[in-house]
Amino acid sequence: MFNIPEGRKLDCIPVGRLAIDINPLVMPQTFAECNEFGKYVGGSPANTAVGLARLGARTGFIGTITDDSLGDFCLDYFKKDGIDTNGIFRAEKNIPMAVTFTEVINGKTNLMLYRDRITADMLLKPEDISEDYIASSRSVIISGTALAASPSRDAAFKILELARKHGLLIIFDVDYRAPIWSSNEEISIYYTLAARYAHIIIGSREEYDLMDCAYHKASSDEETAQRWFNEKAELIIIKHGAEGSMAYAKNGERYKIDIAPVNAVKSTGGGDAYSSAFVYGVLAGREVKNCLELATTHASLAVACNSCSDAMVDIKTLEAALAKAKSEHGELVNKF
Amino acid sequence: MFNIPEGRKLDCIPVGRLAIDINPLVMPQTFAECNEFGKYVGGSPANTAVGLARLGARTGFIGTITDDSLGDFCLDYFKKDGIDTNGIFRAEKNIPMAVTFTEVINGKTNLMLYRDRITADMLLKPEDISEDYIASSRSVIISGTALAASPSRDAAFKILELARKHGLLIIFDVDYRAPIWSSNEEISIYYTLAARYAHIIIGSREEYDLMDCAYHKASSDEETAQRWFNEKAELIIIKHGAEGSMAYAKNGERYKIDIAPVNAVKSTGGGDAYSSAFVYGVLAGREVKNCLELATTHASLAVACNSCSDAMVDIKTLEAALAKAKSEHGELVNKF
Amino acid sequence: MFNIPEGRKLDCIPVGRLAIDINPLVMPQTFAECNEFGKYVGGSPANTAVGLARLGARTGFIGTITDDSLGDFCLDYFKKDGIDTNGIFRAEKNIPMAVTFTEVINGKTNLMLYRDRITADMLLKPEDISEDYIASSRSVIISGTALAASPSRDAAFKILELARKHGLLIIFDVDYRAPIWSSNEEISIYYTLAARYAHIIIGSREEYDLMDCAYHKASSDEETAQRWFNEKAELIIIKHGAEGSMAYAKNGERYKIDIAPVNAVKSTGGGDAYSSAFVYGVLAGREVKNCLELATTHASLAVACNSCSDAMVDIKTLEAALAKAKSEHGELVNKF
Amino acid sequence: MFNIPEGRKLDCIPVGRLAIDINPLVMPQTFAECNEFGKYVGGSPANTAVGLARLGARTGFIGTITDDSLGDFCLDYFKKDGIDTNGIFRAEKNIPMAVTFTEVINGKTNLMLYRDRITADMLLKPEDISEDYIASSRSVIISGTALAASPSRDAAFKILELARKHGLLIIFDVDYRAPIWSSNEEISIYYTLAARYAHIIIGSREEYDLMDCAYHKASSDEETAQRWFNEKAELIIIKHGAEGSMAYAKNGERYKIDIAPVNAVKSTGGGDAYSSAFVYGVLAGREVKNCLELATTHASLAVACNSCSDAMVDIKTLEAALAKAKSEHGELVNKF
Repeated sequence: MFNIPEGRKLDCIPVGRLAIDINPLVMPQTFAECNEFGKYVGGSPANTAVGLARLGARTGFIGTITDDSLGDFCLDYFKKDGIDTNGIFRAEKNIPMAVTFTEVINGKTNLMLYRDRITADMLLKPEDISEDYIASSRSVIISGTALAASPSRDAAFKILELARKHGLLIIFDVDYRAPIWSSNEEISIYYTLAARYAHIIIGSREEYDLMDCAYHKASSDEETAQRWFNEKAELIIIKHGAEGSMAYAKNGERYKIDIAPVNAVKSTGGGDAYSSAFVYGVLAGREVKNCLELATTHASLAVACNSCSDAMVDIKTLEAALAKAKSEHGELVNKF
Repeated sequence: MFNIPEGRKLDCIPVGRLAIDINPLVMPQTFAECNEFGKYVGGSPANTAVGLARLGARTGFIGTITDDSLGDFCLDYFKKDGIDTNGIFRAEKNIPMAVTFTEVINGKTNLMLYRDRITADMLLKPEDISEDYIASSRSVIISGTALAASPSRDAAFKILELARKHGLLIIFDVDYRAPIWSSNEEISIYYTLAARYAHIIIGSREEYDLMDCAYHKASSDEETAQRWFNEKAELIIIKHGAEGSMAYAKNGERYKIDIAPVNAVKSTGGGDAYSSAFVYGVLAGREVKNCLELATTHASLAVACNSCSDAMVDIKTLEAALAKAKSEHGELVNKF
Repeated sequence: MFNIPEGRKLDCIPVGRLAIDINPLVMPQTFAECNEFGKYVGGSPANTAVGLARLGARTGFIGTITDDSLGDFCLDYFKKDGIDTNGIFRAEKNIPMAVTFTEVINGKTNLMLYRDRITADMLLKPEDISEDYIASSRSVIISGTALAASPSRDAAFKILELARKHGLLIIFDVDYRAPIWSSNEEISIYYTLAARYAHIIIGSREEYDLMDCAYHKASSDEETAQRWFNEKAELIIIKHGAEGSMAYAKNGERYKIDIAPVNAVKSTGGGDAYSSAFVYGVLAGREVKNCLELATTHASLAVACNSCSDAMVDIKTLEAALAKAKSEHGELVNKF
Repeated sequence: MFNIPEGRKLDCIPVGRLAIDINPLVMPQTFAECNEFGKYVGGSPANTAVGLARLGARTGFIGTITDDSLGDFCLDYFKKDGIDTNGIFRAEKNIPMAVTFTEVINGKTNLMLYRDRITADMLLKPEDISEDYIASSRSVIISGTALAASPSRDAAFKILELARKHGLLIIFDVDYRAPIWSSNEEISIYYTLAARYAHIIIGSREEYDLMDCAYHKASSDEETAQRWFNEKAELIIIKHGAEGSMAYAKNGERYKIDIAPVNAVKSTGGGDAYSSAFVYGVLAGREVKNCLELATTHASLAVACNSCSDAMVDIKTLEAALAKAKSEHGELVNKF
């Protein structure tokens, strides 16, 4: 289904935020009641990079981290997982990193994004982007967060343009985070510009509606998928929260994906696990159905874990978990 | 050559800066030696709008002006020329307008752009843009200046997207002004995103090189034209200063355009006169060769005048000037 | 009454805005109806500097101008009047100068301040301020405009502190301009910090009320004067518009100052003329009563003129005008 | 020695940052090696407030916290210690709090200040400040951090002015944090403006040198003290790191203060403990010598503890620790 270049050094380069999560060591807990916190690598594309690397993809990254002990920790964590860090830059001294505090209050996950427009990740500059680095990869994943403000926004469009020039498979993972955007119209304008480059778009129904809000009224999943098939998209994944997700392929195939049974301790990390397993499968040449099975199973593993990045598993563990889920639940992915 | 919708209320909507020029009443003079200055409507797309309206096109405008006597003057000037002002908005009180001081020092025109990123024109907001207003026009001209900063940049992309949705002829007039941009990479990134929507692109060789600088090495005119023909472009105009300009059509036609003989008192305004006459001709269904003749003649009239907006003429005057220029100079436009 | 150092190179250093006014060549006129404009040096402390120099004071200046033809013109204008320009700095390229458009609408003067917080005058930096330059002067005049934003605000406080260290006579000319301030509380806070350094404060009743608004309820002129006498003030001038002004001295003297008869063409420039003549008189060791007579006469000359800076006269002209005003009007200044 | 009003509801109002520290549960540890972190109320004036309250002073606070779970935790922590929270405000949603990560690397404490100019504490506004609240207290402590940027800077000067109006004892605790300031000149300018209000100034030798840098060359402790005695200061404390601190009184008394013996696990928190015990003693009417003994002992207790705010003790514990220190070490404070 996908036209993916071969013979390149890297399989995938996620782009965007690489930062720190401060979570209770044992979830679920509120910030107030917790007395022991853990530190974890966070940021949606960072989690996805860790997931890809552990599953076996040759993974790079493009992003900006701080020039302090938190930045050092992020870099070391990536290196331990074998992620290529040549596309990771350091912000100037005293620029802080985005820090996310996670807590669970009455069963609801509450993310406190400690960041603003001058955290390190938003300072990725177009001048940092190397055409050779992009050209060395089979695919790239743009996280919507990277589009929230310049210069990171500018750098993201440069990456998309270079990825197009060199024929990479382009995945757009919408990853909407409200506090970093100024208005819904701004979101719609830049999501639309980015989505037009993408072969695969992964987002929730709400995220597609946001993407459309400056241009189109509420759409059905079918209409959304059709609209992007008129551009470069080959596959559109639309998530519906607890009801699972839908995948629409340009070739006419449609899949309904259930959520694998799970004891969730928080709601975060599932999306990143989903993306990493799905993209891993695509790059490994697997059937779309299997890619989607791996994705939903990986997501279930992540939400059952206190961290996001630490939750990512290797392919054997993932396939064992998928087999178990299918034996207990039946098919997770069905054509319709 | 062009696919232009019919049956719409307006022929063209230029987008961007509508502001004030303070020029010596008699040019050429330096700022220091001049004791009598005139006030003129300025801004490249504003001049183009005046040109279009006087030549006979039903002209609208999208832009933001100040809530003061300068804004009032701009609005009244447009109304006198019959320009539709329903797309013109007022900035909040105390936001200044971009003001340009023009002088000629030793034969060289010196523009002093009195503006920064929070002048009124840069405050055009996506929320201001009406889909119905865009849909009421046959064509739109985006001035590159409008892309220099948000929220004007965001609004410009919304206009491009809506223009595409409603099938308008899209003209991108690069209009590079150095002081309002942060870096060449930023220029290249946003010019490229905008140019991809355009059916007609008008710029100087230097402007095309800027547009390319993040992605491509120096190109020949042929290479530049070919690259944009692979997108949506039908016609590419590349200006070469005193040596005239070149026009490349997707259907293979190529034109060399000479500058009509002129006693210039300044170098500004010529580009806006060129664009307005060329677009006028296209919308009137004239042959490309005639459009280019009108354009170069109109440019020569403008640089001989103390103002830019005041220099614009009606179609009879322009055709008379063209006839005179051809009788003195011979053909201004030649196929090659 | 005042303790003013002798034996210094300069008599006075005004501090703050040195910029351009664009006024109709003939006043009164509206912006719309005027077709011939003049350019004039403007900015309240700049006008005061010109006034001081023409009256005969050895005058310096501290401020930041643009690195363009407008800045050149300001500098040349000052040099022609013999003003010492060693304390004048150039902003970085492409930083615009504050430009003020003046018009008269239905008898009311309308100032359009074309500036924002990054015009050149607001970019005066503490690092620019030379202790030796301050120490070379007998007095300094701080314009309240210089306090509106950092770094100019920071530089103004450095100047006040150095002026105190070296025993200069310190004059605070409130010069309130609404559009450049964020809130009335901010005004009150920084005016109060600055006024505490001053030996002479010159302002309107409204300006003193603004100065007080964070700390005190509406005060009478007597209460205002008494409050500042408890700090460093020796003389407080409070203006009451068309009803003239009042002067309160710490030694108990009180003066009522009438406005000299005049055919005003605009309302601006009078305050600057007033300050320059009053401070000139003080520095020349004249009686307070005579200083106030010169001040009110100079103000009347200025409002009858199309420009502010061009309106300033020499001491012979001023004394002749004073004599004429007294012969027609009687005493302009009366003790009470 | 001090003229302190009686009969007021509160003894002291510290002003400035109330925020969160994320420290290793067990110190010393580096960020990388630590897997279990604690959350603590932090911010120098917040720690001082906790110290004052536990020692027995009736303590208020003026500052701005976030509208999230971190802000809730800070407020609850203060309430448990009986601190009056009527002067504490909430920032708008999505404004982050300053977060400080503390680690010890090779015996050296490394503070990572995760903040920039729009963290909640810098958003304290002059409009928030109630004159009645200031008037209800016997004293106020201004932390130099509050002066680093507007609007917090503006609010701090309003508090100083109101404190002067109502006769409060004013303590200026310099608390220099490099990353939040733009330049040394700016620091010197605003520290000097604030210090002029203070009856007691507490700072390190380096902090006094910074305070002077725009105006004076390097000074001895004697010169520094004398300079501020010429303003409103009654007592000047100058810290010299491991060599202890010096106190100079306007009445001529001089004290050398040694550091009480301690096993420090970090270097932070000592200054806040010192200030709280010293001010507590002054407000309780104790002899200066005893105030200084309590201060240095409290500082030693704090640096031996993993947190700053949690380290603060009650007066019995502090006096017992002082007695123990004197029995082991001899006199901690000596006149000279």
